[in-house]
Amino acid sequence: MSFDPSTLRYNDAGLIPVIAQDANSGEVLMLAWMNAEAVARTLHTRKVTYWSRSRQEFWVKGATSGNTQGLVDFRIDCDRDCLLVAVDQSGPACHTGRRNCFFTSVQDGAEVEVD
Amino acid sequence: MSFDPSTLRYNDAGLIPVIAQDANSGEVLMLAWMNAEAVARTLHTRKVTYWSRSRQEFWVKGATSGNTQGLVDFRIDCDRDCLLVAVDQSGPACHTGRRNCFFTSVQDGAEVEVD
Repeated sequence: MSFDPSTLRYNDAGLIPVIAQDANSGEVLMLAWMNAEAVARTLHTRKVTYWSRSRQEFWVKGATSGNTQGLVDFRIDCDRDCLLVAVDQSGPACHTGRRNCFFTSVQDGAEVEVD
Repeated sequence: MSFDPSTLRYNDAGLIPVIAQDANSGEVLMLAWMNAEAVARTLHTRKVTYWSRSRQEFWVKGATSGNTQGLVDFRIDCDRDCLLVAVDQSGPACHTGRRNCFFTSVQDGAEVEVD
């Protein structure tokens, strides 16, 4: 079946959540959002391209920082309302400079920084 | 720092996206949503508990199917608007009976079922 980005289920803002996973380590790196055009650009360029909700513009991951995400695999979930991209991550994925965004763990009722 | 579920950033519907990852294999299983009370219940019971947007009720994963998710690790992302739970998954995570929800891949412009 030929893939048409408009067949995905977007929220009221026209966005779909995207989980980025390191294709090599399996580490979950971050979650961000795409609109239909960002989906199309990601598949066409093989450079993962989100929609920045804060800046309200296309966000080619790493265009400024150099920490690009090369697309390795593009997956759609069973409800067609979430995406999973396996990526070749250059440098850290998180804007804080950490490898991934999930560096805070809740343990015994308290927040602990891990990794 | 003691953890308070109300300090997370929820969307306009009071929900936060939650990525479930198999604690053993690293496989990304699914994405679902929690409200603050579901976060509290998950941490208290160690049974991953979502908020079902379709049924508008708490959804203790596996309560009906038996395909429970035991909480292994609970992570918060850098923006506090996404969660990652590492889980001990019993049986398949997807309601279709597949191990995870991301069994459709887009390859060369076409949808392909994988796994």
